[in-house]
Order: sequence, then structure tokens, then C-alpha cells
Amino acid sequence: MKTMIILVVNAGSSSLKYQLIDMKDESVIAKGNCDRIGIDGHISHKTLDGRTLNEDCDFPTHTEAFMKLVDVLTKGDASVIKSMDEISAVGHRIVQGAEIFDKPVLVTDEVIQQIDDLKELAPVHNHAHALALWACKKVMPANVPQVVVFDTAFHQTMPEKAYMFGLPYEDYENYSVRKYGFHGTSHRFVSNALAQALGKDIKDLKIVSCHLGNGSSITAVQGGKSIDTSMGFTPLDGLLMGTRTGCVDPSAVTFVAEKHHFTPSQMSEYMNKKSGFLGVSGISSDNRDITAAAEKGDKRALLAKDILVYEIKKYIGSYAAAMNGLDAVLFTGGIGENSDDVRAEVCRNMDFFGIKLDEEANNGCRGQLKRISAPDSRVEVWIVPTNEELLIARDTLSLISK
Amino acid sequence: MKTMIILVVNAGSSSLKYQLIDMKDESVIAKGNCDRIGIDGHISHKTLDGRTLNEDCDFPTHTEAFMKLVDVLTKGDASVIKSMDEISAVGHRIVQGAEIFDKPVLVTDEVIQQIDDLKELAPVHNHAHALALWACKKVMPANVPQVVVFDTAFHQTMPEKAYMFGLPYEDYENYSVRKYGFHGTSHRFVSNALAQALGKDIKDLKIVSCHLGNGSSITAVQGGKSIDTSMGFTPLDGLLMGTRTGCVDPSAVTFVAEKHHFTPSQMSEYMNKKSGFLGVSGISSDNRDITAAAEKGDKRALLAKDILVYEIKKYIGSYAAAMNGLDAVLFTGGIGENSDDVRAEVCRNMDFFGIKLDEEANNGCRGQLKRISAPDSRVEVWIVPTNEELLIARDTLSLISK
Repeated sequence: MKTMIILVVNAGSSSLKYQLIDMKDESVIAKGNCDRIGIDGHISHKTLDGRTLNEDCDFPTHTEAFMKLVDVLTKGDASVIKSMDEISAVGHRIVQGAEIFDKPVLVTDEVIQQIDDLKELAPVHNHAHALALWACKKVMPANVPQVVVFDTAFHQTMPEKAYMFGLPYEDYENYSVRKYGFHGTSHRFVSNALAQALGKDIKDLKIVSCHLGNGSSITAVQGGKSIDTSMGFTPLDGLLMGTRTGCVDPSAVTFVAEKHHFTPSQMSEYMNKKSGFLGVSGISSDNRDITAAAEKGDKRALLAKDILVYEIKKYIGSYAAAMNGLDAVLFTGGIGENSDDVRAEVCRNMDFFGIKLDEEANNGCRGQLKRISAPDSRVEVWIVPTNEELLIARDTLSLISK
Repeated sequence: MKTMIILVVNAGSSSLKYQLIDMKDESVIAKGNCDRIGIDGHISHKTLDGRTLNEDCDFPTHTEAFMKLVDVLTKGDASVIKSMDEISAVGHRIVQGAEIFDKPVLVTDEVIQQIDDLKELAPVHNHAHALALWACKKVMPANVPQVVVFDTAFHQTMPEKAYMFGLPYEDYENYSVRKYGFHGTSHRFVSNALAQALGKDIKDLKIVSCHLGNGSSITAVQGGKSIDTSMGFTPLDGLLMGTRTGCVDPSAVTFVAEKHHFTPSQMSEYMNKKSGFLGVSGISSDNRDITAAAEKGDKRALLAKDILVYEIKKYIGSYAAAMNGLDAVLFTGGIGENSDDVRAEVCRNMDFFGIKLDEEANNGCRGQLKRISAPDSRVEVWIVPTNEELLIARDTLSLISK
């Protein structure tokens, strides 16, 4: 039997993160990053058995980065395979699939073009994805199938009332302005993993999935389908994030843009890069820094945490209303898995919803799939670790095995 | 005993709506509108006993409008009082009181100046209010006290976590960008009226107050205090309204502004005047037109109604989470009081929250204070008619009686 090795690629405009995953035991044989593409170039690479490689390179485009990656994987001190033929498939993470892609698909020239055509809806990501896909196609052996897995696909089941904004309908028709939602691969995986842990059919469950990290989103998963999610047209909307505002009164957007004499794209940058934890606290975008400062009594750091916790509570309530029920709440992502205090505060004073935390179970359980609700809690509360690269690898394997 | 007559004034930049209310029985002795101020001028006036007056006038400023109003009230065929001395006080509706005003206050020159200084936060309203206040002061007898009643005041009890956005903190410090909330006079009145109807102390109640009209907002009233509300920095945020978007992903705001080459103020105008019911349906801003079209199967009219109902449901859920409980939901405002179908759809499939409508009680009960929940509904659901002019009159009377 051929070894099933999947190369997972997450490409940005100047970077190309990768993991090589052996699907036999889902171990990460090697991982790394080709960085500074189009600037100069650097690769950092690490193998499962601890060999590392750090090298300055020349990466004028994603093509040279892929060529270097092939080189490093197959040759020299940090190599892990003999030839790229050992790889069963490449799985690419794609941010925006819009209304075109509601599941992973095999890469064709047409698919790459479609992804590139969506660049307007995800300016930072989709064009870079397309460049990486063309480059990968050029460098990889032609017989290695490539698969694209979309952040948005899981949310394509949302009903119209959940994804339409109150803007004129023509903005949807002409410019595709609607809620797409993101983190779909993660929400799909963790909600299924939770159903399995509960020993229940996901079709019978109403789950609020809280993916909290540097980017955060919450999804209402009813019967295994996303019916609503907090991120919107782009990953800016919803919860307070590391540097992103989350929801803001739309009139405050135009008011602040006017005050700062910002163009729309400057205002977008401001809301994406200067806001959120960083903007509210003035300290850092990192929840660990915010927590440390809050513990020392910093008022704005406390405020940032309070806002996040309060918003999560409100989403749990609103999605319980959207589903007319709530069987389980799950936490995942960097903050969701590691911040005992955020989970504890979210679940505090939520007995109206039947949520009761087991404080002891909640403490110090990093990275474990674990029930943290009290035995008499009507709603199950769990930590469900996510792993987006692994999910992309699984989706890729599943598609090529059909 | 002197008759207690209150003149209630709601001034816009080119209009001056008024009601003369006899507080003995709260009857409206006369009401009308001085319109087209600064353009040409027109007064339309109607008395309780059915006398009317419609006349073109010359209103260069609010001063001439007030002079005409005094004239009409005290002289001629449609007069209702002999002299302005019969009026106990004037109560003015003011949209934006920001963090300065958390209750009604007596008008002084300083107060008028403060209201004018807030014009940046309510460009359409506050400067017009200040102009009307100066004019009223000039025209009214000096011994008639004047009171200002603020739309925002009731919401000044919101905690910081509810009113702060995820924008950089400096935008709050420098430009006062935060959630203020509106319809406060109405939310305060109807929640108190409901407590009274229930025979309970409002301190013990958790109420979601849904004021639904051409402008709509929902408030979480806990123990008689507003702890959160759906309108934000301006009355644009929150629910889908007649011509207003309600909440929109902030990145969609900058995206759409860029597409249309809009300045911030043009974008603001677009979201305030061309969106909401009107923009989504393409038919009308009026719920009655939307309902008629939806009944004929118009898909976009149906969508507009679906969005509104869905958003209301989600607010009920999120505010139940904010309060960790829900004793009652009330509906008020034009749509809230008159649209049986909106109330019915909001309450459908909400049994997780203990909401169960009495469909029969819900039908055709316009303008009545009435319980519409089923006897076995854990949450009380009521229609509570609102009357902002009367509330301003009561607040005014209450302040001058101190």
C-alpha cells in the first residue's frame, strides 16, 4: 500500500506555509514556511525528528518558493521523502470561495481562474492563493492531484435572512456584498468531533461553535449545518479580535473615516490592523498580554476582555434563538483552547440557558478534547481542539479517495 | 388650581412639530406642524374639537415659526388658549444628549449651548434643536419653564462593555465614538408601563423592549435600567429599518463606499436613506407596503420581512444572555403595535426561551396594552403602546413639579 502523504499549503502574498502530513497516523513529518516571497526570501523548515533548516533564498515569485520546498523535502540534511511522487496530493487552504464553492474541489485551470476572479472579495488572500496554485501546478509532478479547501464553504448553507445585509439589494447583485463567514473548515470539524464525543448524531444537535484566536468567529451549527456565523463579508465582522474591530455601527465607520481623512481602503486597514484588542487596550493584540495587563488592573485591558466575553455571551444567546435550542457550546482556537478565564467568564451567569461550568474541569486543560460543563448542566460545554492543516489534509485525502 | 398644559416640541431643521397636552386628562388639545422653515413656510394645525387651520406663512427661521404658533394657539378660529401664560411649561425632544445628559433638565443658555455643541454627533438633529430652543426662549414668556428630554438619556446606564466599539480607544476619547442608543424615552416608558401591568416591581424584571417602527430599536431593560440597546453611535445601527441598514459588516461599508466612489457622508446618506426595507425590497420603506408585496409573493419583500424578524429573534436571545434571564418581551411602535404578523413570527419557535404566543390574543389588537402570550408561556409577551409626546409632557411636568 502506497503511503498516504498530503502536502498542505497555506499561501499568502509573500509567504507559503506548509505541512507534510502522513495520513497513516496523521503525524506532521515536516513543516515550515517559505517567507518574504517577492522581497528576498527565507525558508524555515523543521522535521518530525527534530532536524531544522533555516536559509536565506531568492524567491522572486511563489514558483521559486515551491522549487525550494521540493528541494528541501527531497534532498539534503532535512529531507523527509525521496521524491515528490511519494506525495499523494496537495491540499490548499483558500480563504474565499464565495457562492461558487460549497465544498473542496480538485484544482483545474478554471478553478484557479475562478479563485483569482474572487480576489476583489478577499484582496489580501485570493490573488496570492491563485499565484501559489499556478506555481504549484508548474512545480509539482502533473500526476499529483491538487485540492482546494475553502474557509467559506461550510457556511454556504446559511439561509438568505442570515447572510443578507440591509444595504440596497443591488450591492449584492452587482458586487456580491453579503455575509460569507470564515473558519468554516474549523467549525465543521470541531462540531463533528463534538457530536462524536457526545456519541450523538450531529443531525440531532444544536451547537454554538466558538473559534477564538487571533481571528475569532462563532457559528450556529444546526443538524451539522452552519445556519449563521459572526464573521461577515470579510473576516472583520463579529467579535473583537487581535487587531480587528468586529461589529461596529456602520455610521461610526463613516464618521471615523471622515475624522481621520481616510480613504475607504485606509479605513479598512485601520479597522483590520489597528483596532480590536490592540486598539482598545493600547497594549497588544495578543490575548496573553491583555490578560497579564488586566491582571495587573489595567483598565483598558480589562475592558478589551470584558467586551470579548460579553460579545461571546450575546452570540450564544442569539444563536440559541436562531436555532430555538442549544445542546452544546464548544470552544476551540488559541484563546478558546487555552484561556481558562475567557471560557469561565463566558459561562458564568448563563444558567438561564442551562449552561453550568465545572470550574475544576475547566482549568488547565490545554489542547485536550474535554467536557468542561458540570454533570447537571443542561447544555454540554466542551473544549474541542482544532487543527486546520489536518482538516485540509483530511478533506484532500477524502476527495482524492472518491 | 391652575390648568396644567404642556407644549411639547419636536424640532427639525425645517420643521417644528408640536402638541399641546392638558395633563389633567392627558388629552391633546391641539397639535400640528410648522413646516418648510427656512424655505418658505406652512402651518397645519388641528384642535381636539376638530377645528383645523392650514396656512402658507413666511418662516425664515424657527423664531417666526414659534411666533406663528403662539398666534394660532391664542388667536383666531383655531385657538385653544387665551394667552401663553396658560402653558405650564414647554418640553422639547432632543435626540442626542451624549454622556452629558442622563435625565431631563431645565433649559438654560448653557444647556442650549451644550446641545448645540453635540451637533457633530447628531448632525441632522441637534443643531436644529438648539435653533428651536433659542427661538422658543425668545418667543415664549420668560416665566414659562422649558425642559429638554433626551432620546439617549435612558441608555446612559449601559456598562462600558456594552457601549464601546472595537475601534481604537482614541476615537472614543477624541471624537466620542461609542454606542449611545436612542428611543430611550419610549423604552423607559413602555418597560415601566409593562411592570405596572404585570403588578410587579420593575426592579425585579428582565425585559426585552422592542420598539419597532420606521426607526426600530431593541433594549435590554434589567431592573428598570437599560443595560444594552441595538441602536448605536447614531440611530443607524441594529435592526433593519424603513430606509436604514441596521448592522452591517464594517468592511462592507468601506467596500461599498469604494465601489460607488462615495465620500463618507455620501455613504452615510446611502445607508440612512436608501437602504433597509426600501433598499432590500426595492419597493417601499413602509412595512405595510412590504407586507402587501410579501403577501403577493414578492421575494425581496419577503426577504426584508424575514431579515427583520430574524434579527429581532436574535436580539431577544442575545439580551436574554446579557441579562441571564427573560421575564417579558414587549412590542411597541408603529410596527410593534400594529403588525400582528411580525409579532407572531418573532415569537414562533421560541419555546427554548419559554416564549409561547396566544395567536388569537395577538390578532387585531391595535393600540391596546395587552398580554399576547399564552397562559402557560414562561415569558410574558405584551403589546405596550408608546406615545413619545405624552412621555415628554410627563417628564416635563414631573421636572417642573419638583
